[in-house]
This record gives sequence, C-alpha cells and structure tokens, in this order.
Amino acid sequence: MSLLPTIKGPADLRRLSQADLPLLADEIREFLIDAVTRTGGHLGPNLGVVELTIALHRVFDSPYDRILWDTGHQAYVHKLLTGRQDFSRLRAKDGISGYPSRAESEHDLIENSHASTALGYADGLAKAHQLLGQPDRRTVAVIGDGALTGGLAWEALNNIAEATDRPLVIVVNDNERSYARTIGGLAHHLATLRTTQGYERFLALGKGALQRTPLVGQPIFDALHGAKKGFKDAFAPQGMFEDLGLKYLGPIDGHDIGAVEQALRQARHFGGPVIVHCLTVKGRGYRPAEQDEADRFHAVNAMDPYTCLPISPSAGSSWTSAFGAEMVELGAERPDVVAITAAMLQPVGLAKFAQAYPGRIFDVGIAEQHAVASAAGLATGGLHPVVAVYATFLNRAFDQVLMDVALHRLGVTFVLDRAGVTGNDGASHNGMWDMSILQVVPGLRLAAPRDAEQLRAQLREAVEVRDAPTVVRFPKGDLGPVVPALDRIGGVDVLQRTGPEPEILLVAVGAMAPACLDAAALLLAEGFTATVVDPRWVKPVDPALVELAAAHRLVVTVEDNGRVGGVGAAIAQAMRDAEVDTPLRDLGIPQHFLTHASRGEILEEIGLTGTGVAAQAAVFAKQLLPIRGANQHHAG
Amino acid sequence: MSLLPTIKGPADLRRLSQADLPLLADEIREFLIDAVTRTGGHLGPNLGVVELTIALHRVFDSPYDRILWDTGHQAYVHKLLTGRQDFSRLRAKDGISGYPSRAESEHDLIENSHASTALGYADGLAKAHQLLGQPDRRTVAVIGDGALTGGLAWEALNNIAEATDRPLVIVVNDNERSYARTIGGLAHHLATLRTTQGYERFLALGKGALQRTPLVGQPIFDALHGAKKGFKDAFAPQGMFEDLGLKYLGPIDGHDIGAVEQALRQARHFGGPVIVHCLTVKGRGYRPAEQDEADRFHAVNAMDPYTCLPISPSAGSSWTSAFGAEMVELGAERPDVVAITAAMLQPVGLAKFAQAYPGRIFDVGIAEQHAVASAAGLATGGLHPVVAVYATFLNRAFDQVLMDVALHRLGVTFVLDRAGVTGNDGASHNGMWDMSILQVVPGLRLAAPRDAEQLRAQLREAVEVRDAPTVVRFPKGDLGPVVPALDRIGGVDVLQRTGPEPEILLVAVGAMAPACLDAAALLLAEGFTATVVDPRWVKPVDPALVELAAAHRLVVTVEDNGRVGGVGAAIAQAMRDAEVDTPLRDLGIPQHFLTHASRGEILEEIGLTGTGVAAQAAVFAKQLLPIRGANQHHAG
Repeated sequence: MSLLPTIKGPADLRRLSQADLPLLADEIREFLIDAVTRTGGHLGPNLGVVELTIALHRVFDSPYDRILWDTGHQAYVHKLLTGRQDFSRLRAKDGISGYPSRAESEHDLIENSHASTALGYADGLAKAHQLLGQPDRRTVAVIGDGALTGGLAWEALNNIAEATDRPLVIVVNDNERSYARTIGGLAHHLATLRTTQGYERFLALGKGALQRTPLVGQPIFDALHGAKKGFKDAFAPQGMFEDLGLKYLGPIDGHDIGAVEQALRQARHFGGPVIVHCLTVKGRGYRPAEQDEADRFHAVNAMDPYTCLPISPSAGSSWTSAFGAEMVELGAERPDVVAITAAMLQPVGLAKFAQAYPGRIFDVGIAEQHAVASAAGLATGGLHPVVAVYATFLNRAFDQVLMDVALHRLGVTFVLDRAGVTGNDGASHNGMWDMSILQVVPGLRLAAPRDAEQLRAQLREAVEVRDAPTVVRFPKGDLGPVVPALDRIGGVDVLQRTGPEPEILLVAVGAMAPACLDAAALLLAEGFTATVVDPRWVKPVDPALVELAAAHRLVVTVEDNGRVGGVGAAIAQAMRDAEVDTPLRDLGIPQHFLTHASRGEILEEIGLTGTGVAAQAAVFAKQLLPIRGANQHHAG
Repeated sequence: MSLLPTIKGPADLRRLSQADLPLLADEIREFLIDAVTRTGGHLGPNLGVVELTIALHRVFDSPYDRILWDTGHQAYVHKLLTGRQDFSRLRAKDGISGYPSRAESEHDLIENSHASTALGYADGLAKAHQLLGQPDRRTVAVIGDGALTGGLAWEALNNIAEATDRPLVIVVNDNERSYARTIGGLAHHLATLRTTQGYERFLALGKGALQRTPLVGQPIFDALHGAKKGFKDAFAPQGMFEDLGLKYLGPIDGHDIGAVEQALRQARHFGGPVIVHCLTVKGRGYRPAEQDEADRFHAVNAMDPYTCLPISPSAGSSWTSAFGAEMVELGAERPDVVAITAAMLQPVGLAKFAQAYPGRIFDVGIAEQHAVASAAGLATGGLHPVVAVYATFLNRAFDQVLMDVALHRLGVTFVLDRAGVTGNDGASHNGMWDMSILQVVPGLRLAAPRDAEQLRAQLREAVEVRDAPTVVRFPKGDLGPVVPALDRIGGVDVLQRTGPEPEILLVAVGAMAPACLDAAALLLAEGFTATVVDPRWVKPVDPALVELAAAHRLVVTVEDNGRVGGVGAAIAQAMRDAEVDTPLRDLGIPQHFLTHASRGEILEEIGLTGTGVAAQAAVFAKQLLPIRGANQHHAG
C-alpha cells in the first residue's frame, strides 16, 4: 500500500498518472478484500466498481458536481477516495456506515439504500442546477442494471429524456445481476447491446465524438450532430434508450480506467442526458466471488478471505431457512401455492422452493410493485401467491397491497423477512414500518410468529385465507428456542402467569416473547405479577385480548416495530372501542431513523430487552398501581 | 336507438354484421353524451374507446377471456356491452359504479382506479392460465399511453417480455394524453411510431401476418418468424417495445372497428405477449370535447350537452382554487418555490402557477414515485418543491416520502387535494389513508386546514420548513365559511367554549370544524359542555393539546380520515406518553372500503356530521361523565 494512503480526496486522485491508476485499483481491491472479510459487508458490488469509481472522481469535481450512488452498498470505493479509509468498524456502532452518509462526508448525497432511486434525485438535481443558473454543475448517477428493472427508475428515465438541454450523466453499471441475475426484457436488451461489439467501434471514433458544448466543439461531433441516423450507426444500436431520446455511449469495459474516463469526459461535455453503459464483473479480482454464480459474496459476514469460512459460525438455523423449508412442504401439499420474489431468491429463503417447483416461482426483478400487482393477478386466476420480501421493501408496494389485493379481497400471503430492527444496514433497512402502515388495510390479517413452530403454523393459517391479504413477519437472524404456551384463550397464547391474579398484562408481539418472559420474571422480583401473552395474529385485534386487558390493571405492549400506530396503538383503540379503559403503555421502536449498529446493541439501546422492558413496565406499574406497587416498593 | 338495447351481452354483439357496427357506435356515443352530461362522470375517455371496446368484445370471449381496464374510468362502453345500460344513477348511491365493479358483473375484474396497474394483473393472470393448463384462455389489458409513464407499468412490461410463450395482449390506447398531454421520452417515442405510416403498411400485409398457433398457421408468418430483421422491417419501427422483446402491431386507427378487430384477431392467435397500438381521439364524436385542449371533458359535472354550462353551478370557490391562487402569490415572493404535478396540472389547481412561472412547474406524468424522488433532488439542489397530488395517489409514493425526503431531512411540501371522503369515485379515490400512514414518518409535519384562511396560512408555514417534509391536506369541493378562533393555545386554535369549565374536549381536524361546532351546540342542549379546538398541525401532536386533554373529562376527536392509526390514535398515544389518562374516543371514517355515493351522503352515513358527532359524543359522555350527564339527562 503506497498510493491509497496518499489519497485524501478526489484532488489527490487527479494528480496521479495514468500508469499509477491500475496500481491504485489493485491496492483498493486488496484493501477491500482484507477489510470487508474482517468486518462483513458488501464485497462483490464494490470489487466491481473500483475502476469506475476512480474514473468518476477524476473526471467529475465532487462535491460541486454531484455523484449519486443508487443502492449505496456500491459506495465503499467512493468512501476510500473521499477521505474515509478507516474500515475497522464498517457498519458497526460508531464506525462508518455501509452506505453513503451525509454525516460522514459532503461527497455523499443519498442515504436511502432502497434501489432505483438515484435517477429521480438526479433529475431533480439537474433541474435545480438549471433553474439556479449553474450550467457547469454536473449530475452523475450510477445505477446497476438490476435497479433499472424498478419502476421508479423508468419513471425517471422517461422524465430525464424530456429535457435534452439538461446535463445529466447516467452510468449504467451492468454486471448482469442485482442479487440474482437481472430478469426481464430489459436484461435481454442489455445483453444485445453488450454483444454488438460497440465497444471497439466507440474507441475507434476517438475522443470528443460526443462533445456538444461550443468551447470544446470538434468537427467530428458537428458532423454527427443533427444527423441522428449517422450518429446512431457510429455506435452500438442504442435501442430503447435512444428511442426514449437518451443518448447512449457504450458498451465500455468498466475495468479499463482509460476507457471509462474517456467516455465520462465525453458524456460530461455533452450538455444533455446521456447513458454511459459500463460492463463490470461483480466480485472482480477476488476469485471466490467471481466464480460464485449464487452470488454469496454480494454481502458477506466476517470470514477468512482464503477459505471463505465464517469467523463466527451461525449458532442455529435462521428464521429465513425455517420459512424456506416450510414452503417446500407447503408446495407439495398445495399445488396452487406459488411464490414471488423481487430479485432476492436466496436472501428470502425461496431457493429450495424454486428448485423443487421451478414452474411456480416468479422472480420479478427489483420491482416490488409488480410483485404485488402480479400476485393480485395470480390470485384472481385461482392460485395462492406467497410474496416474500424484506419488510422495509414492502413500503414500495403499499398501494398495491391496499388497492390491488385488499380492495379485491384476494388471497395473497406476504412474508416479511428482516422485520423489526435489522441493525447494521442502517436506517433504510430496518423493518419498523410494516405493522403500522398495514393496520389501515381493510381485511388484512397480520401474524407475528414468536418462534419456528409458530412461523410454520401461522404460515399455514395464512395460506388458508382465500379472500384477504395475510402477512407473516419475522426478524433477521437466528431462531431462538421454541416458546411453549400454557394455554390459548381465543386466538391468544398465554405464555406465562407469575401470580394467581396478575396485575400486568404483558403483550409480547412475535419475537419479543423471550424478552417479555424475562421481563415478567424481573417484574415479579419487584413485586409485580404479570400475565405474558402472545396474540399471534396482531391484526385484527383479538376480542379475547381486549377481555384479558379488562381483567388486568395495566397493559404493556411490546413490539419490534415503530411504536406510532403499531400493534400497541391498535390494541389501545380496540380497548377504547370496547369501553375498556385499563391504562395501556406501548413499547416499541422509537419513531426515529435508527443509526447503524448491531441488532442487539440497538434493542438494548431502545429498551426492547428483558431488562429494558421490565424497567419501563416497573415505572408504569409504580405510577398506575399505587397501592400494591407502592407497598411492595416501600417493603423492598 | 335500435341496436344498443338489443345488446344484453358480448354474444349479441358478435351476432351483428360489420355494417351494423358503426351504427351501434353512433348509438353508444349518443347514449354516453346524453347520460353522462345528465349525471356527470367520465366523458372524454369513454367517447374515445367506443370502437375499440366493440372490437374487443367481438374478438375475445369475456368473461372466459379476461379483459382488464387500466384506470377503469374508460369502462363505460364495456358496461353498456355487458348488460348494464341503466346509467340514470351513474356514480350515485345505489346506482352503477363509475369504474368496473365485480359486484356488478362477472366481466369486471379490476376495481382499483389508480393508473398503471392492469399490466401487473395481466402478467399474473397469464401466468395462472399457463400453470392451470388453460392455454386457450386469453388475457387482454387495455392501457392508455398516459398510464404507461407509471413505473408499475414498466415493471410489468419488463416481466411480460420475459416469457415469449405466454399469451397476453396489451392494447395501448394512445390518445396522446392522460389528463394532461402525456409527457416524457415515451410520449416522443409513441409520436414517432404514430408518424411512420406503419398503419398502411400493416394493412397491406394482410390478415394473419402475426399468427403463430399451428391451427391457423399461415405461410406469411412462417416466413417472418425467426427472421427478426425481416419482421421488423415489415412493420413500423417497433422501437423500445421490440427491444424489450414484445411484439408490436400498429399503429391502428382505433376508430376503425374492422381494423381494430383484425389486429386483435392476429394478436389473439399470436401465442405470446403482443402490443396492439391503437390511436384514438379522446372525446371523439363530441365536438366540445374534441376541441378542448385543456381536456375539461375528461370528467364532467352534470351539464347541458349543447351549451356545456353546468346544471348546478358551484356555489363558491373550491379548496383547490384557493390553493392555486396562493401558490401564485407564493411563487412571486419565493423564487425557490417550484411545483410538481403527476399529470394533473388542472385538477390540483396548478394551472395558474404554471402560467405565471413556466420554468418552475414540473409535470412528471402519472409517476407519483418520481414526483417525490425528483422533489428530493430539487430540495437537495436548494429549491423548495411543492408536490400537489390527490391524497389517495400519495400512497404510491409512500416509500419515497419516508426514505428520500424524511430520512434526508429535506424541505418538501406535499399538498394533498381530495383528502378524506371524495364519494362518487368510489373506494379507490377516497383520501382516507394519508393521516394514518404519514404518522409513522419521522420529522414529518402535517396540517389539516379548516378553511381558506388556514389553508393559506398553513401552506405558508409549510414552505418555511427547510429540513423536513410538510403536508397540507384538504377535502374535495367547495370551501365553507371562514371559521374564526377565539384564541390560540400553543399552536391550537380554540373555536368555541360552551361553558366556563367545559367537560368535553372536541378535537376538530381540518374540515371537520363546522360539524364539530354544530355538535357542540347540540351537546349543550343535552347538558354537556364542550371546548371545540382545531389543532391546525395534527402531526406532531401539540403538547398544548395534551394539556387541554388533561383539563377535560372526555376527549372526542373527529377526523375525515380512516380512524385506525389516525389523528385520534396519535393524540391518544401522546396522552399515554404524558400519563394523561382522560378517556378518549376517536371518530373518523370506519376502516372499510367505502361504496360510491356523494360525499354528503357518506359523511351522513358514517356519522361525520354535526348531528352524527353529537349523537356519538353524547353516548360516550353519558357513559363516562355519569354524575353530570345522568343528572342532566334525568332532569331533561
């Protein structure tokens, strides 16, 4: 390492000679493999954009020019080149974020790591630059071919194409995949572009072919300008981009810094919207990643970089794999069950289902809206679709869940993985919204299983519902032990009673069950008795739960979801509607965007552990159960 | 009228001779102009699809074949041809719906009238037909060129193109506009297709050119099949559709029944996904509509069909126009304020702003996600965007509001027109979700103005916020009188006190103020005193409101929004957090999908009128304020 440490910012990068650049790229790859296998993080995508990122920062003048990263997990190289080379606590509490972060750097703009957004920002920024009289200020968006399958990207492309005088550079980072291989007509079209050898023809044309600004006007551009046909012939068939009115440059070898720089310089001077199509290899330069078709190196846990074995092997099986296994069994019993994933077959646990029933799995690409709308069509056609997505990504399809599934009273099951606090991925990956926004959907039923056994049982109950959407949501990570029930009242499982006539009703939503059981024990030590229940189906609120609430003196609800409008609020409303005015206190995730840290650290910090729940419940109990609580307290 | 009354269903239509069809089309037009100008409803779109709909029902066998209408307001002709010819109570209580309705007919499938959804359903249905072994069952989706600008449609196209062996007919009803002229690169591309005279060339090729199924195999198709280049040359340049892998047929004169039938028959036999591009004229056959560039005949109120004057002229000015006028003033004072509309410049009241500041208005097409994501970009670039949409359509962009605006702490103002009960458009147009789902968005501030004066004031307060999203929401229709405040406590306006130490705190959200004032008077007559307050900003909950709640014996909240997770629930939670256990009861829209009827009828039915609120509040008061309430009651 001799070059990388000298790069404090893009200006240093621009001082390097062309000969130094491949050396720097090597150092960056070495750094990434070393650092990311230590901490865990996104490896594959970043190894693919090393040269591209170097070229971007040499050609454009960030932060005056705006460089936007779509799905920010490909921004590690960008971080390294903009003054952030301490990766020792990558994605960990108080360490650097795994995504762009405006708190870290003025070079970062988009923190949202949901895909397909960058073109929308770019359109807005380009419009702002134009209105504010900053014609020399460039906007560059880097977007993967996978993210182009998202409707938001299409909406942006359609708008960007509208104004041919607004400078905007769209770098398509085409590695033929998102998590999985990119699907659909667009993928085939990109493949066509890739195989037409436009690359060589582009190079032959030489520097300046695309320049339009008078300052750097060159005869070759003038000859082409206005002669669309000639222009089109000179390059690869631009196809649909050109049809939309977007100029197309490429395909470019995204690992040839000189070629990428040249293309970007031309794009920079073009003066209108232009697509630069770069071909890259995900995992480039790290053999295990390059050779892995299943793309297990997209994001890795801490591991040995040579053996690729995990440093802390997982203790047990995960929620995801329990779901995946049950789907395979369900598939055998129910030929009408089909599954839908939005470009995340492996991460949501559907790989085995896909293997067992290849005709009954639909990967729609990064396109959550279509996942849900097409599920509505499948259900209308007589099948029962199971749509498996990360909880946070269902926000993209809220309208389709509401209007296309619920209004039509269709039997579609949504399985929300990574619900609740996910942690290291930061604010935009926490699944803390679903149990609130889904409350408003008429007829929808929502289950939060507490363990593997309930996950299996509730998934089966869900797919039995033929006339309404159902949701099964569970957290990231390893399963805990199975939590048995003492008995079931209505649909509510009673998990524990710490006295004959308990004072506190502790409502444990889903994976909060173990913490609530711990809390009940701690509360008993403080002199407060409790009934711990798991409502299993949290929407609609079970009348038995309201009756239980009426029979206690204080209700405390605990959920791994934003507390505003969540399960606690719904129970409180059901109690009001039944004229049950037992005081209720609702614990959940505070309604803020959470900074990245481990799931455990965050749960600790926000009080969603046994100790945390007990401490908060005790405060309420001391206020609201004055006689007994105070007595006990004084006695203690 | 001699033909139309004989058409009880598609079978009758298929019995007609080709010569009869133009006569039937004339009768349908006559019927529509007469019926829709009587009741009000969607006129322009339906006049444009008369021939297209006749051809569809002759070529396809609905309901076995599935005909899907995107944005169902173009389904009137479909209704007439499938047994529904009583339009006397169109869109009125107990009359037929203005959209497809499964309760009305087995020929209707999609009730959701949000745009761009039909292709998603179609993909799902086509997949279901394939899996269930129904290869002869056709799926046909009719979608406007305007709706193709929506990302959901793009996601579907990308998926549909994936399977070349799955029969699916996409009819693009191209009238060059949605509400406004269709925008963007796609619109330019469609224009190119329109002007290449492919229509004549298509006809010259003759019947059967596209047939692929062995049963009807013809040499001309075999000659073309597999020879993509030749195929492409034979037709108009299919451009981007072809690039995606979708076969393209057209453009077809959408008012020539024979031509449309011929194209549809070929598409029907093709065996894979195929686009049929039909050119139509919105308002066709009704001179006032055809000649109106501003498209005021898209949807009309009851009017005289000759003079086009309204039958019941509007009594006053609307919420929409008050917003529009204030935007013009704001625009003059604040050069950084820009406005965004999603293809609804006129309906959301931005036409005057657009006229005054043509460089500062952005129509993004039917693309709510991009409206919000590009607003994030504009705000990042230093401007203050005002995004004006119908409340129900913001659901499409929930993720962008949350992740792109709120997470980034950007100053973007959302103006939600048609919030609350809208009525005649039915379930999918009611704006009853916004005040619930937006509760979860960290940092977002939400205002519900009660009158024109507050609308102006709160809009100005909203655009002053530079580091968070703000929302101003108001209902459909005419403004009521200005409701003055007695005083302001914190940010809360006190509108009325009906006694020196009132027992009930009546929280009137936005436009519910007049009803709550009426209710307070009625409650006083029953012996209950009340304070009526308007919180103005309903999110975050004002601490002054919680203090007011503590000083009363009962809180009743009244909102024109779904009651689950709404303002009432938020106030209840804020009270719990402050340990204020005054009983609260929350009135709002029951959390069901509402059937179409007038706004007034629905508000009456769900108890959101002065009488309704008083009656419900009195029940609570009698239960919860036993001493005084019972005394008074017995005394009375």
